[in-house]
Amino acid sequence: MARSPDSPESVPPPIITLLTDFGAADVFVGSMKGVILAINPHAQIIDLTHDIPAHNIRAGAYLLHSASRHFPPDTIHVAVVDPGVGSERRPLLVTTRSYRFLAPDNGLLSYILASEPKAEVRELTAKQYFLGTVGSTFHGRDLFAPAAAWLSLDEPTDAFGPKIDNPVRFEVRQPQVDEGRVVGEVLHIDRFGNLITNISHTLLREAIGTAELLKVRVRIKNTDVQGLRRFYADAPPKTLAALINSDNLLELFCNQGRADKLVNATIGDQVEVKVA
Amino acid sequence: MARSPDSPESVPPPIITLLTDFGAADVFVGSMKGVILAINPHAQIIDLTHDIPAHNIRAGAYLLHSASRHFPPDTIHVAVVDPGVGSERRPLLVTTRSYRFLAPDNGLLSYILASEPKAEVRELTAKQYFLGTVGSTFHGRDLFAPAAAWLSLDEPTDAFGPKIDNPVRFEVRQPQVDEGRVVGEVLHIDRFGNLITNISHTLLREAIGTAELLKVRVRIKNTDVQGLRRFYADAPPKTLAALINSDNLLELFCNQGRADKLVNATIGDQVEVKVA
Amino acid sequence: MARSPDSPESVPPPIITLLTDFGAADVFVGSMKGVILAINPHAQIIDLTHDIPAHNIRAGAYLLHSASRHFPPDTIHVAVVDPGVGSERRPLLVTTRSYRFLAPDNGLLSYILASEPKAEVRELTAKQYFLGTVGSTFHGRDLFAPAAAWLSLDEPTDAFGPKIDNPVRFEVRQPQVDEGRVVGEVLHIDRFGNLITNISHTLLREAIGTAELLKVRVRIKNTDVQGLRRFYADAPPKTLAALINSDNLLELFCNQGRADKLVNATIGDQVEVKVA
Repeated sequence: MARSPDSPESVPPPIITLLTDFGAADVFVGSMKGVILAINPHAQIIDLTHDIPAHNIRAGAYLLHSASRHFPPDTIHVAVVDPGVGSERRPLLVTTRSYRFLAPDNGLLSYILASEPKAEVRELTAKQYFLGTVGSTFHGRDLFAPAAAWLSLDEPTDAFGPKIDNPVRFEVRQPQVDEGRVVGEVLHIDRFGNLITNISHTLLREAIGTAELLKVRVRIKNTDVQGLRRFYADAPPKTLAALINSDNLLELFCNQGRADKLVNATIGDQVEVKVA
Repeated sequence: MARSPDSPESVPPPIITLLTDFGAADVFVGSMKGVILAINPHAQIIDLTHDIPAHNIRAGAYLLHSASRHFPPDTIHVAVVDPGVGSERRPLLVTTRSYRFLAPDNGLLSYILASEPKAEVRELTAKQYFLGTVGSTFHGRDLFAPAAAWLSLDEPTDAFGPKIDNPVRFEVRQPQVDEGRVVGEVLHIDRFGNLITNISHTLLREAIGTAELLKVRVRIKNTDVQGLRRFYADAPPKTLAALINSDNLLELFCNQGRADKLVNATIGDQVEVKVA
Repeated sequence: MARSPDSPESVPPPIITLLTDFGAADVFVGSMKGVILAINPHAQIIDLTHDIPAHNIRAGAYLLHSASRHFPPDTIHVAVVDPGVGSERRPLLVTTRSYRFLAPDNGLLSYILASEPKAEVRELTAKQYFLGTVGSTFHGRDLFAPAAAWLSLDEPTDAFGPKIDNPVRFEVRQPQVDEGRVVGEVLHIDRFGNLITNISHTLLREAIGTAELLKVRVRIKNTDVQGLRRFYADAPPKTLAALINSDNLLELFCNQGRADKLVNATIGDQVEVKVA
């Protein structure tokens, strides 16, 4: 009998996403996929990105939070940016309302944990879900990949290790609000040179007011931007401009250019918003 | 009962391809995949490339046409190179004899439309197929990805928006033919530095004749190449040479080197072919 | 009736992996995937890497061997690093105990053949498994991709061409062992700048002894390293150090830095190990 892809009796493949700093030029990621498929050949493996700057836990944490939330419930997210691999740092399994996350205990899940205060956090200890020999340099392949594959076969989370209550988290810095003035910072610079800040649309509306928002002055590195644009092509070319981006965050950009180069910006640079 | 992957009753997963200028270092593409799978978890998502040079609509148009035609019928192709995102530019759904294409109305489908004069062109307007909130900066995620996923669930194309007859198309420049002389240009430079031209094997045979083809002289930037090679290793190393490539186009190359660096070539450079 | 992904009657999709030097900026790989899916839309296609340095057969051979062994039995591995495409070099189909490999006959399978002395080697000659027109520049798309897709549909290997006994193999150089001294070389430099050598843990234990291993001195380019570390973070920052890596090979690394830059190392550089 024909099985339609959207018929109710058709079980979709379990989804496992991967986010790492392993790059594309080696076969670290390919090896992880082989390990997953050797345990669950039905898994659908999706790459979030493998080009997190090497060892940059904060960048990985930001991008994991940004992308993971678009996936369907029950997706298993594996994140490996792991300079401490092989040391005493614990491997984690975190269960949120919608997802399971597997990652080293080094802050990589900070944004996830900040937005999911009731998440269940476990230390991954159950060796039956790891490869036979776990080395000390590649837990992505030897530990996180096989554990994710076993999870996708519906093994219960409590079989993977004990609950813990002290996962490593870096401080998720919040913008400072002071009399109609908001001071935040650059969180991320994307492939187009756009500067994504930690200042949300919600915060701006509360601190400054919806009516005043179009008249704000945004300052970064002694450069001022007047007002918010509705979209990229709404700004004059080759000048710094600002808008609310697709993650509801204030973003500085340069139509037909790169904002990061225009003002020589880096992650962590201060961004100030106030009514002009 | 065993379900063989090639048994007639087994419905293959719908295929959705993605071509963008989003790069691999961000999670734009990963977010699009999440949105697609949240609507149709059975979709098989295939990357064509995400390394179109930022905002380069012509390069995207060429590579989309080159790759898309190899896919099985009913494949859904999503292409997003979209400097005008959020402005008045329309989102399109184009149905050809074999495929559906979703793309911004900015010329990205120029080669597709040139080779499919009877294609049906619709403006994507049906908001029920978009994400709940469509922002103004990331239509790949908010609009094209969900529309592609709904299409893959067999929603009828006429539900997505009205037919239009004036999609934006850039001129697909044809080589000039003049008394046994063909003048075209460099369309694309690939990863190996090969220079792909807009001069087809078919045109050369018509303009110059099959018998004469092996004796042609190809000129680019004051450098002459005598005759056509059968394959790359057929040419002496480190010199400019020419052949008919896998897309039936005249291509200049350098065995064990890069043709683009050898003659300092860029896209748009003139290429002349005549009988030596 | 519900079909569980792990129920015994559920046949997993056949897996086809791809390893090439085609890069991500072109659509060579996307075109290969289209060809595969047009023949077998059920195939699960997995990228090992497409960033083998252009034409570097040795790098491709090493990474193919490293990654392929993690995949489940019956995986079909396609490897294309093929500077001689279109020339007389033969296309190969190699069957090992667990896998089938499709690759040009230029040494790319040297490590596979070295570790699988009883592998069956065939020349791919059966044109019914190729695209209708096989060009002379892109056998990845015209020949290897369709042959892999047909193999995944359970066509018998002996239908693809005759057995041969003289595949091209480069010498897999073995380290020299001499009175408690082992001399090998750098096989591969990974994305983090780590130097992977051809000296295995097994060989070191035999040549030097397990007890002495922690006291060895490793020398590369007049720089000495004392002892082996257990993991990367076990070494002081910014200095050269050594460990046994996840492939059981001696690896030189620099915690919080790049070993390749620290000692200006390249592939082929000599590495000496002896008891200090």
